[in-house]
Amino acid sequence: MILGIGSGSTVREFIDLLSKLSLQVKCIPTSYDTELALRSRGLNTISLLDAHKIDLAIDGADSVFLDKRVIIKGHGGAFLREKIVDYLADEFIVIITEEKLERVVPVPVEVLPFAYSKFMLNELSKYGNPQLRSARDKLGPVVTDNGNWIIDIDIQPNLISRSLEIELKSIPGVIESGVFVRDARILVARKDGKVEEKTI
Amino acid sequence: MILGIGSGSTVREFIDLLSKLSLQVKCIPTSYDTELALRSRGLNTISLLDAHKIDLAIDGADSVFLDKRVIIKGHGGAFLREKIVDYLADEFIVIITEEKLERVVPVPVEVLPFAYSKFMLNELSKYGNPQLRSARDKLGPVVTDNGNWIIDIDIQPNLISRSLEIELKSIPGVIESGVFVRDARILVARKDGKVEEKTI
Repeated sequence: MILGIGSGSTVREFIDLLSKLSLQVKCIPTSYDTELALRSRGLNTISLLDAHKIDLAIDGADSVFLDKRVIIKGHGGAFLREKIVDYLADEFIVIITEEKLERVVPVPVEVLPFAYSKFMLNELSKYGNPQLRSARDKLGPVVTDNGNWIIDIDIQPNLISRSLEIELKSIPGVIESGVFVRDARILVARKDGKVEEKTI
Repeated sequence: MILGIGSGSTVREFIDLLSKLSLQVKCIPTSYDTELALRSRGLNTISLLDAHKIDLAIDGADSVFLDKRVIIKGHGGAFLREKIVDYLADEFIVIITEEKLERVVPVPVEVLPFAYSKFMLNELSKYGNPQLRSARDKLGPVVTDNGNWIIDIDIQPNLISRSLEIELKSIPGVIESGVFVRDARILVARKDGKVEEKTI
């Protein structure tokens, strides 16, 4: 079985669980973070190039808008690779805690550093206040696993829609956005410990 | 005056010409190749971040489909940065020789190396035969100025359309395509030495 493994704290708990089960799985990581975590736990990793199918992708999310059928990801800065793997998988499961439903979060875009300019900020300002994400452990902007920068846009919930994905990606220099619109099973961990399943 | 300077052999001739005129211009290069050429000729270069407007972008093309209003670029592998600059300019001039009109050329896409896979090739095969561009001066694939790979797709002319730009860019892992659809003045250098102007 080939699994696409997302990134972030929720996924990390899934990786811990996976490492304790003796399953015959091969994992495609979606970030250096996940790759290091998988390998340090002795789990098999393969690259996308080795895969003929991805049976299942498991990922977290920053917010899920059930009615709009939109998932917002990208707080961990791994959404470019996550989207590639999540969209290719036969099935996509998103694990979130209850408070992430309909949560107001910034929408990130990964941009080519060359394209960062007044023009791009103006274009992104149509959606909300755009802010270049600064690194806390090095000088200057966060540099993604792909060598790019991230701009977080403070988009109001009423402007969140499925068409936002293509709109943002259509801006020259925008490489990907944190707007995910593929079909997914959403596993919502409620405060009472129960897990509720939704689909979008 | 701020000029966006494309890339390639036709643009190189324009740069030579520009260096001989004593104009007060600042140039935004669209590739390392153009940046080196501009600097070696003593022309002023600035980054996109320094610019408040781009008065004019000048570029070449591999093919121009006048009726379909589509320009195909990318043989030089610089189309990601070219598109950013060309699309932002107030005016866009494309200089081509006559034989480039309606010419059948491969359509390139710049892709994240991580995303190169059977899945991506299958997706691109819907349009034509996809071929990873190999480098001739180093081992393996061509690596772009942005650290990515290029896949050339042998798309039949009847499948060339304005909507192809968004379709290709919508594929996760495709960062940009060589399909340009913005308004442009096309200067066609004819074999008899005359220059004809078209608009798209």
